[in-house]
Amino acid sequence: MYRLYHAPLSPFCRKVRLVLAEKRVEVELVEERYWERDSDFLRRNPAGKVPVLRAEGRNMPESQAICEWLEDQHPEPALMPKDADTRYEVRRLCAWFDDAFFRQVTENLLYERVNKKVQNTGYPDSMKVKAGARAVKFHLDYMAWLLEKRRWLAGDVMTLADFAAAAQLSSLDYTSDVDWARNEAVKDWYAKIKSRPAFRGLLADVVPGFPPPPHYADLDF
Amino acid sequence: MYRLYHAPLSPFCRKVRLVLAEKRVEVELVEERYWERDSDFLRRNPAGKVPVLRAEGRNMPESQAICEWLEDQHPEPALMPKDADTRYEVRRLCAWFDDAFFRQVTENLLYERVNKKVQNTGYPDSMKVKAGARAVKFHLDYMAWLLEKRRWLAGDVMTLADFAAAAQLSSLDYTSDVDWARNEAVKDWYAKIKSRPAFRGLLADVVPGFPPPPHYADLDF
Repeated sequence: MYRLYHAPLSPFCRKVRLVLAEKRVEVELVEERYWERDSDFLRRNPAGKVPVLRAEGRNMPESQAICEWLEDQHPEPALMPKDADTRYEVRRLCAWFDDAFFRQVTENLLYERVNKKVQNTGYPDSMKVKAGARAVKFHLDYMAWLLEKRRWLAGDVMTLADFAAAAQLSSLDYTSDVDWARNEAVKDWYAKIKSRPAFRGLLADVVPGFPPPPHYADLDF
Repeated sequence: MYRLYHAPLSPFCRKVRLVLAEKRVEVELVEERYWERDSDFLRRNPAGKVPVLRAEGRNMPESQAICEWLEDQHPEPALMPKDADTRYEVRRLCAWFDDAFFRQVTENLLYERVNKKVQNTGYPDSMKVKAGARAVKFHLDYMAWLLEKRRWLAGDVMTLADFAAAAQLSSLDYTSDVDWARNEAVKDWYAKIKSRPAFRGLLADVVPGFPPPPHYADLDF
């Protein structure tokens, strides 16, 4: 059985957890206090990050490379389309959410408010929190613009791009940082993906000292 | 014909240029002063970054997604192996160089010293330059460790991972920021990749105000 070293609110771990669950791949989850830089963990992954997937005797870091590997090894159900142009669009959007969205939104909101407290690394920087609160609006509007023309973010079928986005948004939703009233299409998209069986594990997460708001696990939010 | 909006010393543009040249795909290069946020350019790519590949009437940002698309559309010569485990290793290393190496080394050295001057955004931060100079040693040692067991970075054949690494290192070499005497195996690897026809375009780059050092274009450096 695979093992995933993870942190509950890490969007990159959540992306991998969603892919594993959607493909019904059994996995043992091991919570990792990666910021303590425990020597066993650093041996598994010198970059000191989560997620790390332990599979076939190897330790595999880097969430996007892990997801593509899972797609190669467990092709059904497919999360990567067959044609080159849509594959490009999926990968472009994964990079957009993993990089731009994460840096502009998730890092400024969740990491300032929750991770700093959990990891005991200081107080939230209010400038960053404000920047994150501004940026999340722009990103929701961008998603709304995509969803005007498409059923799912990269096209007419659900792909890894939807999981990359939902991983970020679900982490933020844990701290009530997403205004679902801003756009109906985005809310509908999130309701669809949140109601998938693959999402259940994420909705059961609880971080000590930070209880989730009631709407977090509610499918009818 | 494709068109690539690029900046000469951007490692991400260089990665795409290497892939295009290796696959002998004709491309028109258009230099983009992306930091001036010209409205035509922002229309092509709202993220305001280079590279952007213009192909088949679409504007395509995100270097890794572009490279995977080029691999899908122009499979020969292959830069992505066929088996899932080596594909994973290629993607892990691309993420390592595009993310960790870029952030710890290239951004601290090249972006502080060259980009800030070219873009007129202030003076180099000496703390960052020092951090970059320390980090490049660690990264060269890591590459040496990989190359002890492999002919190329991801295994026994040249892949996109080698281009991702060479793109970063060639940008840094333009400002003499790589100590090639540190490790023989890394120097040999770079000599091999630098002598490929695909590298010629990069070696001809000249940034006004920053002439390259004599060894930069020398294949016998």
